[in-house]
Amino acid sequence: MVKSTMMDFPLTLTHIFERTPKLFGKTEIVSRMPDKSLHRYTYRDFYERTRRLAHALLEAGVKKGDPVATLMWNHYAHLEAYFAIPIIGAVLHTLNLRLSPDDIAYIVNHAEDRILIVDDVLLPLYDRFKDKVSFEKVIVVPLTGKPVPEGYVDYEEFIQAVSGDFDYPQIDERDACGMCYTSGTTGRPKGVVYSHRSTVIHAFGEVMADTMCLSMRDVLLPVVPMFHANSWGLPYSGTLVGAKQVFPGPHLDAESLLDLMEAEKVTITAGVPTIWLAILNAIESNPGRWKLTPGMRMIVGGSAAPEPMIRAFDKHNLRVIHAWGMTETSPLGTFCTLKPSLDSLSEDEKYSYRAKQGLPVPFVEVRVVSDRGEEPWDGKSMGELQVRGPWITGSYHKLPPEEAEDKFTEDGWLRTGDVVVIDEEGYVKITDRTKDLIKSGGEWISSLELENAILAHPKVKGAAVIAVPHPKWMERPLAVVVPAEGEKPTAEELREFLLAKYPKWMVPDAFVFVDELPLTSVGKIHKSV
Amino acid sequence: MVKSTMMDFPLTLTHIFERTPKLFGKTEIVSRMPDKSLHRYTYRDFYERTRRLAHALLEAGVKKGDPVATLMWNHYAHLEAYFAIPIIGAVLHTLNLRLSPDDIAYIVNHAEDRILIVDDVLLPLYDRFKDKVSFEKVIVVPLTGKPVPEGYVDYEEFIQAVSGDFDYPQIDERDACGMCYTSGTTGRPKGVVYSHRSTVIHAFGEVMADTMCLSMRDVLLPVVPMFHANSWGLPYSGTLVGAKQVFPGPHLDAESLLDLMEAEKVTITAGVPTIWLAILNAIESNPGRWKLTPGMRMIVGGSAAPEPMIRAFDKHNLRVIHAWGMTETSPLGTFCTLKPSLDSLSEDEKYSYRAKQGLPVPFVEVRVVSDRGEEPWDGKSMGELQVRGPWITGSYHKLPPEEAEDKFTEDGWLRTGDVVVIDEEGYVKITDRTKDLIKSGGEWISSLELENAILAHPKVKGAAVIAVPHPKWMERPLAVVVPAEGEKPTAEELREFLLAKYPKWMVPDAFVFVDELPLTSVGKIHKSV
Repeated sequence: MVKSTMMDFPLTLTHIFERTPKLFGKTEIVSRMPDKSLHRYTYRDFYERTRRLAHALLEAGVKKGDPVATLMWNHYAHLEAYFAIPIIGAVLHTLNLRLSPDDIAYIVNHAEDRILIVDDVLLPLYDRFKDKVSFEKVIVVPLTGKPVPEGYVDYEEFIQAVSGDFDYPQIDERDACGMCYTSGTTGRPKGVVYSHRSTVIHAFGEVMADTMCLSMRDVLLPVVPMFHANSWGLPYSGTLVGAKQVFPGPHLDAESLLDLMEAEKVTITAGVPTIWLAILNAIESNPGRWKLTPGMRMIVGGSAAPEPMIRAFDKHNLRVIHAWGMTETSPLGTFCTLKPSLDSLSEDEKYSYRAKQGLPVPFVEVRVVSDRGEEPWDGKSMGELQVRGPWITGSYHKLPPEEAEDKFTEDGWLRTGDVVVIDEEGYVKITDRTKDLIKSGGEWISSLELENAILAHPKVKGAAVIAVPHPKWMERPLAVVVPAEGEKPTAEELREFLLAKYPKWMVPDAFVFVDELPLTSVGKIHKSV
Repeated sequence: MVKSTMMDFPLTLTHIFERTPKLFGKTEIVSRMPDKSLHRYTYRDFYERTRRLAHALLEAGVKKGDPVATLMWNHYAHLEAYFAIPIIGAVLHTLNLRLSPDDIAYIVNHAEDRILIVDDVLLPLYDRFKDKVSFEKVIVVPLTGKPVPEGYVDYEEFIQAVSGDFDYPQIDERDACGMCYTSGTTGRPKGVVYSHRSTVIHAFGEVMADTMCLSMRDVLLPVVPMFHANSWGLPYSGTLVGAKQVFPGPHLDAESLLDLMEAEKVTITAGVPTIWLAILNAIESNPGRWKLTPGMRMIVGGSAAPEPMIRAFDKHNLRVIHAWGMTETSPLGTFCTLKPSLDSLSEDEKYSYRAKQGLPVPFVEVRVVSDRGEEPWDGKSMGELQVRGPWITGSYHKLPPEEAEDKFTEDGWLRTGDVVVIDEEGYVKITDRTKDLIKSGGEWISSLELENAILAHPKVKGAAVIAVPHPKWMERPLAVVVPAEGEKPTAEELREFLLAKYPKWMVPDAFVFVDELPLTSVGKIHKSV
């Protein structure tokens, strides 16, 4: 029996962290502050401050496996927390500041967070749930420069009180390093806990040539919040390769982001479609105002990007790239890079590929399952997307398996709740959420497909299709439409437009026109509202 | 105590293998046959045949942990063995066909190989050591199409006798998947055993944007033999991303390689410097004969590439990229990609960076250790390169730790035997092998540095500097020089040339002119000869 002679070397964030000052000491990390000024420092500064934060947390009694909560925007201090907490064996617990105060309190209590690190500009939010939670210590990052209110610990004083000279605790790669609660619209939020191992392998999956191709030559601006599935893992992937990192702080409006992208020469960015739609509107309303890096990659996930948006950005030499994932999948599950065999397709066919969610990333296994069992990869057979892999959750924090039965299959795959088809080439295309399918008569109607079809109309800026109960057909689609700037589309023209492409039974019975659509805490359309 | 909720999903080659037909079924694998014809098939064909080979080996009684030896060139059947053996839990043992028959026999017996898969064209080599070994079964790949001699198993019949329908055995990611013996010039060959885990993480390390940036868009031609540190891991990395793979078979002369690179539109290739020197000579002797892919990456490792060679290839728009590794390191240890902060350097300075061995790859930790202890990264302080990481060996197969004491430090790092400096930016530069340093008086002279300096002379094609005993200085350098085509350099002009750059005590006392230099089994200069 031949046995491996390889070293037993754990995959931990400590290695990634220790590598930064040696190889990328002079590379910059830039953060937009609440007053819109730019905070700049280097990986070397980051390293020294993070060592201090880790040391101070150890001195404050934080032990292995303890969750430490953050309530913070995207900026350098949050990045410090991203590493300081895991390298002492504790667990980074990012709180989603867009949830209701009640939900945040529930999550803090469920996770049993002992310490909170919070931006001073977010103290008003903390005030709204502080009576429902009891932190041992609340550490405030004085981003505004104003004195930290009494009763709180000043982050800067906290980290300056120690030397940063401490010994790392022994960490097993399967130890927890971070946690994130789902923000599902149904049921209580559920906690997903990442390990050092899963986070490291996930980072390797993101920096591959065929996925984000993230490099030390990149300038990375994650628009997706650091409290949302670890900002899609980008702070870890970016640090792994030593990319210049640019954080937008609380300024997520299109103009602020575009100013920052231009000034810092951003080459890759990531966020949900609503962000990119706003960016597109700003660019098209202000021709020539921003000089962005040609070919800048804009990773889109969270919900499906409309194909017309991908086309529109191409005209500006900005490349929208689709990905798919969820909190439960760390989150990278699929990534839409075109295979060389698709090079000979027509432009239209290529765009239809680019609007898909993409190929499964290595080590993410995917399958499509319907009531009939596993479906073939034929581009037509719909079913639920089920996944498994080393960075996919197999359970939820403190949730007894019997209460999570609907989330996992008996053979151990995660049920994503997304309805998809996979084509012969292996590209996954979401057709809907299981709960967003409209059951009209015996037929299923994909609200997502209808939304994208309506969005293709030049007079339309936004669209949501929802199911309304119907005495005869069980459910029928209703479209909620946001007209484009200065346009007044009528229900009749939209109906005609859809009938050119779809059978009558699929076309919504009614069109309602509104000024804007309600969004969830992570920027998706909130259909129940 | 918060615990990870991630799935327990092993990092095995089985996942990489199972992914290929689903995502890359139509991509080609091309092999040069002994008669120089091209064998072409797809990943789907590869998948089906590999399943059959795995099945047949199981039926032949191969058990988990059993070593299965190969004596093969680079081609499709070797790739089949690369996966079929590991996916049934057995251990791929690639025999280095350039070793002496005695050494091969020693290695086979030491590893206790039970089965051999051998190219029919290599049977004459097998005949030279078959009396010293006893395989249960010798399976012959009929590459020439001629009937397989009596007493041997025909590979094609072997795999066609089964269906390929079998259940995978349970594999732990730390189970062995492959082994390779070092071909060191001192002492007996020693066995390094790779695990599924180490091989998979290593593959992730190779496909990163900042290392080989290997993609499904690449056409990969590994010149480095598949019996040499797993062809630097490229067959696994290439299959991970679904690159088109091109194998040169036994035809490793410059013209055959150039023909193949042109015909198959190769974008990335890898080998030792002697291969590239031969390629360069062929290109320069036949201007315009081969139309290669502009910017083709040529990964060089095994020994230091002369800087003039890197410059010369740039003129042909072919990009030499330096890497460093050894059998013990899977082998990727460092990779020479230029940091963006070096963009402002002069051309000459950039070339001097590109001739270094590069930055440590993520999860490979490096340090420089001399008699004084750990040396600073200042570009000047020399010492032995020591490494550790998840794909670095921590021991040798069946070798008691006390017999490997000189290979590992007490705190568990591998001693590479290479003398290096590391600069402030983190670039590793080999100055010599510990055993190739020349100790003249109290000073150390780097034979490697002198060799590269001599190679820079226009009348020189090859150079080796060796130590000769000296009564007064202990050792003094002697240069063995191969003149360039049609040139007759004199000792005097070479001495003058070196004195322009080096102090007198560093310049060799004597210059000997020869027609060619003896090479080791892996293409390095064999100095003891």
